[in-house]
Amino acid sequence: MPSLLKIRKVGIDTYHENIAYMPIGCEICKSQGFGALSKIEIHSAKKSILATLNMTENGLVQMGEIGLSNIAFERLGLADGNEVTLSHPDPLLSTLFIRQKLDGFSLNKEKFLTIVKDILSYRYSNIELTAFVVACTHQRLSEREIGDLTEVMIETGERVDWGLPLVLDKHSVGGLPGNRTTMIVVPIIAEFGLPIPKTSSRAITSPSGTADTMETLANVRLSVAEMKQLVTEENACIAWGGALALAPVDDIIISVERPLNLDSEGQMVASILSKKRAAGSTHLVLDIPIGPTAKVRSVKDANRMKKYFENVGKRIGIKVRVVYTDGSQPVGRGIGPYLEAQEVLKVLKEDPLGPADLRDKSIFLAGELLELSGKVRKGKGKEVAAQILHSGKAYEKFMRIVEKQGGMKELAPARYTYEVINLIDGEVRSIHNQKIAQVAKLAGAPHDPRAGVYLYAKLGDRVQQGGALFRIYAENEEELQLLSNMFRLILTLCR
Amino acid sequence: MPSLLKIRKVGIDTYHENIAYMPIGCEICKSQGFGALSKIEIHSAKKSILATLNMTENGLVQMGEIGLSNIAFERLGLADGNEVTLSHPDPLLSTLFIRQKLDGFSLNKEKFLTIVKDILSYRYSNIELTAFVVACTHQRLSEREIGDLTEVMIETGERVDWGLPLVLDKHSVGGLPGNRTTMIVVPIIAEFGLPIPKTSSRAITSPSGTADTMETLANVRLSVAEMKQLVTEENACIAWGGALALAPVDDIIISVERPLNLDSEGQMVASILSKKRAAGSTHLVLDIPIGPTAKVRSVKDANRMKKYFENVGKRIGIKVRVVYTDGSQPVGRGIGPYLEAQEVLKVLKEDPLGPADLRDKSIFLAGELLELSGKVRKGKGKEVAAQILHSGKAYEKFMRIVEKQGGMKELAPARYTYEVINLIDGEVRSIHNQKIAQVAKLAGAPHDPRAGVYLYAKLGDRVQQGGALFRIYAENEEELQLLSNMFRLILTLCR
Repeated sequence: MPSLLKIRKVGIDTYHENIAYMPIGCEICKSQGFGALSKIEIHSAKKSILATLNMTENGLVQMGEIGLSNIAFERLGLADGNEVTLSHPDPLLSTLFIRQKLDGFSLNKEKFLTIVKDILSYRYSNIELTAFVVACTHQRLSEREIGDLTEVMIETGERVDWGLPLVLDKHSVGGLPGNRTTMIVVPIIAEFGLPIPKTSSRAITSPSGTADTMETLANVRLSVAEMKQLVTEENACIAWGGALALAPVDDIIISVERPLNLDSEGQMVASILSKKRAAGSTHLVLDIPIGPTAKVRSVKDANRMKKYFENVGKRIGIKVRVVYTDGSQPVGRGIGPYLEAQEVLKVLKEDPLGPADLRDKSIFLAGELLELSGKVRKGKGKEVAAQILHSGKAYEKFMRIVEKQGGMKELAPARYTYEVINLIDGEVRSIHNQKIAQVAKLAGAPHDPRAGVYLYAKLGDRVQQGGALFRIYAENEEELQLLSNMFRLILTLCR
Repeated sequence: MPSLLKIRKVGIDTYHENIAYMPIGCEICKSQGFGALSKIEIHSAKKSILATLNMTENGLVQMGEIGLSNIAFERLGLADGNEVTLSHPDPLLSTLFIRQKLDGFSLNKEKFLTIVKDILSYRYSNIELTAFVVACTHQRLSEREIGDLTEVMIETGERVDWGLPLVLDKHSVGGLPGNRTTMIVVPIIAEFGLPIPKTSSRAITSPSGTADTMETLANVRLSVAEMKQLVTEENACIAWGGALALAPVDDIIISVERPLNLDSEGQMVASILSKKRAAGSTHLVLDIPIGPTAKVRSVKDANRMKKYFENVGKRIGIKVRVVYTDGSQPVGRGIGPYLEAQEVLKVLKEDPLGPADLRDKSIFLAGELLELSGKVRKGKGKEVAAQILHSGKAYEKFMRIVEKQGGMKELAPARYTYEVINLIDGEVRSIHNQKIAQVAKLAGAPHDPRAGVYLYAKLGDRVQQGGALFRIYAENEEELQLLSNMFRLILTLCR
């Protein structure tokens, strides 16, 4: 008979990893050869889970007990003190598929489904998860595979049905600090009269996502019922998509992409389109900023992605229009949730000090979306969008959305600031998107929404010795001090 | 001022991963945005380490404290209650190199060194580690890169100097159950009079490594001093190499390869050659078994590896002779530490019931090694080796080595056995190396050294309905029961 062990919730949050804790020298570990990092299978009468083992000493877990991390305890669904047995797990079939992919073979939809189900039932440790993510990077997925993976990601999550024939959406592949067009496009479209229930993401590797920026003004944690109410009344909402369990495998995949700062083209297409489809979108304008330090660096790369977005979109029933925009520098001047939100408000209010590039780009994207919907004649979209913005109606619409999402929150900029001063006279020839984003992140964005960077100088600007290039906002004086030494990295100046 | 936290060893063994434990809701986590799986940097006056954060509740760690896993505590080198500060870690430069490799670029030696140093200073979590391993799989490393990585692995570990001009060695790339030629080759070479201080590995994904098999007879945890003593007296030892910290990064890399069942060609070459060089070997015979279910499946693959082994060997100063052998089925009949050791003893004793294939292969490899040393004329090696074996001197030499390594241990086979019976008359046309190895592993090998499989029928043998195909040995009756249903998978019979 296999030995019975009593389970105990030790109270450790390991995020998505099932970790089990057993005392060093316990009988079953000796007889079964289990040790730190061993993969074990834990069986109850109802359910089995896989877990990675950590060994404990000092009585943290008693002999005859097995401690479980929060997620493992929750997945097993038993009470403290219930009994389980252990075994060596069968090898996971789906890791074979990962090896096949690494060996250059194609995977079919069934194999992707097996992998995704294993991920969602927490059978993967970070090791298997990383191997899968890496196996899919750098053009290793064909268009057919991207489509298969997209469908699998949709089918394994929740889906929203708005009961509407037309649901508009916009998305940017990212990589450009300050690129907060969503908060301007949405009220324009809504004011025009078309439904755009926007779900946005938080920052993954950037200083702010649209959800982070919107959150400085209003509540973004909306239920589907609340979103539907808003869409009925105002045609729009701007919510955080993460609460909806759309394409949930994506969030787990992102958790390993983040520390690697890795973006996989195929997974990006699958991730974006699956979330859009699950969110019920029917028409999508997809913004690909192109620039030497943007996520997409050449028209050639953009063309390949455009094809994937359009064809996979068609396969899953979304009409996708891909547009290319200038990705050579940040959009607007503020970077970080609070600073970006202030820029958005300036554009909506038609403040003459508002960033012209953010305004123009928003009008362009709104125009494209209006034309894609078929409700505005081709070539007329931009004009219509500009009119709505200039009329002040987009601002009013936005303020109503904010109000119905529990806003308008009042927030001040961060306490400590540091101005990076230019050492020479010259002209700004390039701005490194990632490096300036990193400064904003090191200053505390997005976890401190008031932290960030405000750019005084942008491309083509003449700067003079002793003048300010940009200002850093931070809540922590010491972090700010460290940052003040970094500025030479950021702007390349020519005399 | 950043807040001070008191460190506490919570007594959790996480193997090579630095894990830190902090209470949910602690001030610093809120202000810094730290959560489960956040990467943090822990600073003391002397030293900084990187760690991955797990959040705790139920008072496991108190407010104002930070708990550390055993390895993290050890790496920091402080006492319980000492104070540290936390910060967001700088992004690891070397993960950029991993992305470059994933993007198809070559890495130079300096970049490999940066990566390996980050691994050895425990700055990588399993996520970064897996990404590096996967980035190097499936022919993604050039010969130049394999050489660079090999040198880096040698330079970052301990090295043994035997003070001898000639140090012989043999190695098999593995994948073949029962392939225990080392324990026969070593006493032949030693009896001939040449030094062969053998360091062997334990099983990684197999039912037994040479060190596991030898350990059923003698102690294999030898210090360098003990090994030197044995080499002086007997020209040879058969020790576990893992205790010597040769190419230590290899063991960490292997810990992520194992759950993926992944073998990277380039890393295999670097791993083997770096350990041999660090172990002071000058002449190496390298056995590549080729077969449909062996690690190397075609002569084409073997030719590519041969070139890598020979050229990288030359670069680091080892004369390598690569030989191809039959990898179509296990060597001998016993699989698992105890059963293999018994086969070795039979061959050394010239027992007529001993496995002829193990004997012939051992004589062949010993002959090649004698010729490679330059001390035996080309074409004469096999004859000389056979003579030494037949004379009984190799057996005597082996017994002296065992004795000086604290043997001869007495061990019995496992308690429970199950014979897999043939259902039809036929001839054995193929044996699946990995599947039969898996049976032995599921039976408990190598953690239970007495568990394993004994093959009654091998390739070409006629088997009759009702006759035994193989016998499974296990310590656990229930595991044996589960196994008894698997046998149909193993042998493909033709009528």
